[in-house]
Parts: sequence; C-alpha cells; structure tokens
Amino acid sequence: MFSPNSLQPRMMLVNRFSCTLKNQSVKIGHCSKVPRNVNMEKLQHGYLFPEIERHELIHIKKYPNANVIDLGIGDTTKPLPTIVTSSMVDFVRGLSTAEGYKGYGPEQGEKALRKAIAHKIYKNLDIKPSEVFVSDGAQCDISRLQLLMGPNLKIAVQDPSFPAYIDSSVIIGHAGKFVDRIGKYENIEYMTCGPQTDFFPDLHTISRPQLIFFCSPNNPTGHAATRKQLQQLVDFAKVNGSIIIYDSAYSAYITDNSPKSIFEIPGAREVAIEVSSFSKFAGFTGVRLGWTVVPEELLYSNGFPVLHDFNRIVCTCFNGASSISQAGGLACLSPEGLNAVQSLVDYYMENARILVNALTSLGLTVYGGKNAPYVWVRFPGSKSWDVFAGILENAHIITIPGSGFGPGGEGYIRISAFGQRDSIIEASERLKYLLYQEGL
Amino acid sequence: MFSPNSLQPRMMLVNRFSCTLKNQSVKIGHCSKVPRNVNMEKLQHGYLFPEIERHELIHIKKYPNANVIDLGIGDTTKPLPTIVTSSMVDFVRGLSTAEGYKGYGPEQGEKALRKAIAHKIYKNLDIKPSEVFVSDGAQCDISRLQLLMGPNLKIAVQDPSFPAYIDSSVIIGHAGKFVDRIGKYENIEYMTCGPQTDFFPDLHTISRPQLIFFCSPNNPTGHAATRKQLQQLVDFAKVNGSIIIYDSAYSAYITDNSPKSIFEIPGAREVAIEVSSFSKFAGFTGVRLGWTVVPEELLYSNGFPVLHDFNRIVCTCFNGASSISQAGGLACLSPEGLNAVQSLVDYYMENARILVNALTSLGLTVYGGKNAPYVWVRFPGSKSWDVFAGILENAHIITIPGSGFGPGGEGYIRISAFGQRDSIIEASERLKYLLYQEGL
Repeated sequence: MFSPNSLQPRMMLVNRFSCTLKNQSVKIGHCSKVPRNVNMEKLQHGYLFPEIERHELIHIKKYPNANVIDLGIGDTTKPLPTIVTSSMVDFVRGLSTAEGYKGYGPEQGEKALRKAIAHKIYKNLDIKPSEVFVSDGAQCDISRLQLLMGPNLKIAVQDPSFPAYIDSSVIIGHAGKFVDRIGKYENIEYMTCGPQTDFFPDLHTISRPQLIFFCSPNNPTGHAATRKQLQQLVDFAKVNGSIIIYDSAYSAYITDNSPKSIFEIPGAREVAIEVSSFSKFAGFTGVRLGWTVVPEELLYSNGFPVLHDFNRIVCTCFNGASSISQAGGLACLSPEGLNAVQSLVDYYMENARILVNALTSLGLTVYGGKNAPYVWVRFPGSKSWDVFAGILENAHIITIPGSGFGPGGEGYIRISAFGQRDSIIEASERLKYLLYQEGL
Repeated sequence: MFSPNSLQPRMMLVNRFSCTLKNQSVKIGHCSKVPRNVNMEKLQHGYLFPEIERHELIHIKKYPNANVIDLGIGDTTKPLPTIVTSSMVDFVRGLSTAEGYKGYGPEQGEKALRKAIAHKIYKNLDIKPSEVFVSDGAQCDISRLQLLMGPNLKIAVQDPSFPAYIDSSVIIGHAGKFVDRIGKYENIEYMTCGPQTDFFPDLHTISRPQLIFFCSPNNPTGHAATRKQLQQLVDFAKVNGSIIIYDSAYSAYITDNSPKSIFEIPGAREVAIEVSSFSKFAGFTGVRLGWTVVPEELLYSNGFPVLHDFNRIVCTCFNGASSISQAGGLACLSPEGLNAVQSLVDYYMENARILVNALTSLGLTVYGGKNAPYVWVRFPGSKSWDVFAGILENAHIITIPGSGFGPGGEGYIRISAFGQRDSIIEASERLKYLLYQEGL
C-alpha cells in the first residue's frame, strides 16, 4: 500500500521556483541590489511543521467529508486548568486599572517567575534566579542562542531530532553545503541515535564539536536519556571543550528515574545551557512561554561568561515574554498549579499508552510513549513519507514522517499523543484496521 | 552645574572586566573551546535602556526618599481600555473550556488579525493580509530581519536613532570595528539627521547602502518625515538598489499630514519593509504585540521574493505572538477599540505639549512633541551624559542622554511624555525651577 504517490516534500516546489527565477524574467517587483542571504539559500525545504499542515489542507480539500484526525504536530488540545486562567484573567483585568497596569517588564522575565522556575522546576539543583531567562518559547530561544554563538561553529545534533536545531544552524551559518547523496549538511555532525545504541550517540565516533544540540526526552523518538548516558555526554563535552544546548521541553513527561534536567548531572553547570518551555508542560503552545538557564560557570575559551552575552542578546533582540503569559506561568508553578498541570501530563501519557498498545498488538516495533508524549513506530523497508501518505490517504490520520527529523528517522513515523481521548481511541482503531488489512 | 560626575556609561565597566579577563585567571567555571562571538565582542557597552535603569537604581539607593520621576524609557503608563482587556479576558476564559482552547496558531499570526492590520491600519494602501506578519514587538522583528538578511551588508542608519538598529547590526556582523575617535562603527553609515537638514539625511553625501534603517516619527528626535522627504528616500533606495527597513512604531502620534506609513509613498512596495508595534499605539509594551509588512514586490538581487524568506524565518525562529495578545490586538482594531486607543495617544500628546511649553518658556531649543511622544531638547556646549546626570542629581528626573542614540544625539536629551499627567506637571515645574536657577 505504501507506494510513492503525489505527496512530496516541499523541496520539489522550491526547486521548480528556483528554475523559474533562473530562466524567466521576474514579472512583478524590482530587483534590489541586496543579495539573497546565502544561508537562507542553503535551506533545503520548507520548515517541517508548516509542510505537514500544507499536506493536511490538501487532504481536507480532496476529502471534504473525511473526519481527519491530527496526530502530527505536537499541539496540546486539553483546556488550561482554571487556576492558571484565573490568574491570567486577574492580571488582564488589572491592566485596565491604574494600580494593576504594567508596561515593560524586565527583558529577562519577572523576578517572581525566574525565582519560581529556579526553585520549583530545579528544586535542589542550586539554579540561581539570575541564571534563568524567561522566553516566549524554546524554539525562539534556540535561534537567540544561535545569534549569541555566531556563525561557523562546528556543531553536532542528534539524528533524528527536532528540525529547528539544524534549520537555525543553517540560517546562522554553521551548516555548509547540503549533500544530496546523504541528505546531510557537510559541516553538521549527525549523531545517530537509533535503537541499536539505546538512542544515544556512539561518542567514540564523534569528533570534537563546539556546540552539541541534545534533546531529552527526545523529539521525535521519545527516548529519555539515562543518567549514565547524560554523564557520558557531560564528560565528553568537558574533555572536548564543547557547549551542550540541552532541550528539556518534554521533561515533565518522564515517568521513570531518567534525569529531568541536564543539571542533575555533576559537571553540567560548566558545559551546558538548558532550554525549556511551558508549551508541553502546561498546554501553553499558544500562550507562548519558556525559559533558558545559562549557568555562571559556563565560559567561552577566553574566560568570558556566556551568561553576560546571553543577557545582552535578550536585552537587544527580545523584549521579554508577554506579562500575561508570565502571570499564567507563575500560577502553573504554585502547588495547586503544579497538581493541575500534572493531570494534563497524565492525560496525554494515557493517550500514549493507548497508541502504543494498539500498535504493538499489530506486531509493530514501537518506541517512545513511556517518557514522552510521542510514539515512534518503525516500518522496516518503507520510506517515511510513503508511510505518512498511506496513513493519511487510507485512515485520514496526520502523522509526521520520521525522515523529516533527519536521515536517522527514515523508516519511522512519529505519532503525537496530544489529542483528545476519543480521537486517540478512534485513530488506534483505524490504524489497527488499516495495518491489519495491509498485513503489516 | 553639568560638570562630569561619577555617572558614566557602562563602557568603562566592560573595559575593566575585559582587563580582568586578560590579566587574571578565571576564578569559577571551566573555559570551553568555544570562542566568544567576535560580533558580541564588538558591542561597545550595555544596551542603552537597561543602562538607564541601572542609573535609576543607583540614584534611588542614594536618595531613598526622593520622588524620582521616570521620563526616560518610553514606557506607557495609562491603563488599557476595558474594551481591549474584556476581549482578552473572554479569550483567556475560553482557554479553560473545550470549545475555547487553542494551541499553536499560525506562526505568521491569526488570519483575522493580519486582515485587520492590513485593512484598518493601512486602509486603502492595498496591503494584503498575506504580507502582514504578526510579531511580539518591533525590536524582536528587527533582529529577525537581521537574521533574514545575514551578515556583511552595507547598512545606513539615521543618527541619532533607536539603538537596536546599530546593536543588532553589530550582533549579526555588519558593523566592523568601533572607531573610538569618532564613536562610530567603521562599516555603518551614520546619516546625520539634525535640525540643520530638517532631521532628514543629506542623501547626496550617502554612498550606496544595501539596507537603510529609517524610523519616522523618529525616536529620539520626534521628527516625522514629510511626504517629500520620504519620496526622496524611496527614490534613493530604488536608484541604489537599497532595501529600507522602516520603523513606524510611533505613527499613531502623527498630528499633521506627514505619512503614517512608508507605503503611502509611490514605489515603496518595491523597496521597503515596515516594522511596527502595538506597544506605543495601544499601551502594549508589556503585552507584546507588533507586526512587519513585507510586500510581494520586494525582491533580492536574484529576483527571489524577500517575503518567502521572511516567512521561513518566522516559521523557524519564532512561533507566533501569544494568542492572548493577538486577541487584545484585534480588539484594538475594532471601531470602539480604535477610538479608545486614540484617547490614550491624545493623553500622551497633551503631556508632550505641557513639557514643550515648560521647556520653551525657558528659552531652550526644543524639538519633537508634535508628531511623537518624545521631546528632544538641546543643551548647546554640554555633554548629554552630564545633562542627564545633572537633571537626575538635582531634579530627580530620569531622562535619556541623546548621545545614547548615536553621536548625532550629543548635546541633547530625550524626555518621554509617556508619564501620568501629575508627574509630567511636577517634572515640568522641577525642570523650570532647576534650569531657571542655573541660568540656562
């Protein structure tokens, strides 16, 4: 069933467009003398998630009566706890009173929120509030960290991984040329993280990167790195002088004893920056709130503290997260708020269990779903985009093709557990029917 | 009275710190092998506005009982209209219901808001909603535009101007070395905009910049460029193949017939990007909402549309403005909302008139305050930082030293009219008393 069909990644469209530019005169507009940014030119195709949405829209147009279930983009669906919205309502109401009005806040975030993140999220890890920078989300801070570090660094990323690491690296200028034959950028080190190595890179094969992007629990594989693995990573970074940019956006979903923060690992304060978010932790995907921790001990090769430069980036290139979102974030970190957001996490994890059970009952090899709200399903011998297309065409379910997360994701699809329960049950039934029928 | 005193810009502190690094061993932490970003190293001092806040804190510590009036940072002080907060309250309440919950929105902004900006702000200027990108503020989009364009472009900025243009240019890598002798970066063209040329650059003296940052009404001078001036600017850009990054964040304050958008000028769609904001227009400094217009006709030298690449930046390096702030922005653009925010603008402009009258009554040369909420006051023969320090020390009023906006601001101070009325009246009286006493 999973034969190639008309669904293709955007790459082809862009190539066609480039040809048009080369061979035809421009019909509208006026060519400035500003050359197109060579880094933007190197990007291979549209950013993954808008691409998936584009496919969804095409499908809906083709089957206007189909009940399409979206388990693609990891977008939260459960309402926010009222304790969180009540705090935001009070704050917003205050904005129309003389006493409650607030203009610019500190670029680094409200003191109370920085303190709450330091003390509630990192408990006894001795993170100082002054090391916490409140942001409008992890993806935004990844780009600000690229601006901070500047171009032409030697970087390494997990393969597969969240595409913003590679795409933002291309945009700032680390990546070098894209090599079609292998589907990789020549100056980026792709650290294969597959089941054969317990989803952790074989560090003996990795050269000396300056920046290491590492996400745990990993998006898309759902694997939470173990304490032993993370200690290896920190030791590797220390020996090689690397800085780890550690993304813990899914740490609230860890159910076993895997570390929830890189700062649980001895030595991490000297080698790591941690980026995180309220998006998946508290359903803030649309509200927009995250944070980044830059420890004082983290220094450039000349001894200058990274913290000082990141503070400058935050003040110059950002102006603080919305004060309303920050009021909501603070409510999430109250004792009642923490309980309430935990129940959201539990709900999505029950979804993940339902999906995992349905897929394993078919004899498929399934990863994730235990410490993360993503299920990572193997389809040996198939191309991810074909599997994606087949499931969409025949079961009207949106997933994400694993190869969208890097060459190491080929042959897999990612299924998000962030749906409503009835959709998850319906999707499980449809997948069982479809895949059983097809004899997979 | 305005003799140099202990208040000095942060530059000196940074220099001292660098010396420490060079001459002493590092006491905490571990030097990575990641070199400090050479562009960050080129930044000359702390970002202006946090520097001003730092001085304010020192002053408050020195005079704990003083009634300090802050007319420094252009921060709004009037409560938001209830029509705006009610809409946000309804939206936030909805977030805790199954029907009202919303996760990720489109990265480019909600369709309804893009449409409202295109049709209400730009009325009959034929801006398409698809050309409007909703942001979390103009300063943030200026940095995203730098990422878009990439390093090593020849740029020109108004002198004086909002410091984010130059600082973000340094960070991305356009600026070259800072030349102490003249107080300028060697690769940035400073377009002097003083009273002798009606606050518009003498374009005959400007070489061929690739990017031109232009802000009207200008921050800090308060000058709104005339239609004739802007037509010259657009023609200059077209002839030279430049792209104008036009900041219209204060356009709501224009009271005469000066254009409120660069797109009022014939030909601008082929040469200009416009960055703007709800911050000053609607008191959203803390709420965080802005937008950028990239016209379809704007093309790189190879004919590729700038719009396509900016869309990619917005999808990859940003994830949309807070959905709550967007609900508030939409309410601002309803007929009742527009009336309500106009009354905020009128209030601040009455403040500006009070300040202008007080200062001109002393015989001072005063600009601005007519089309912008900033008053730009000349102190011939004095250094801006000395005037700033003298006013702070003797009248307990925070202003901004003009030289913080570039060498062209030397000898001026900027006074913000974004205060509460009683503070503005009190500040006017104090300034009259102080400056009359001092015989200025």
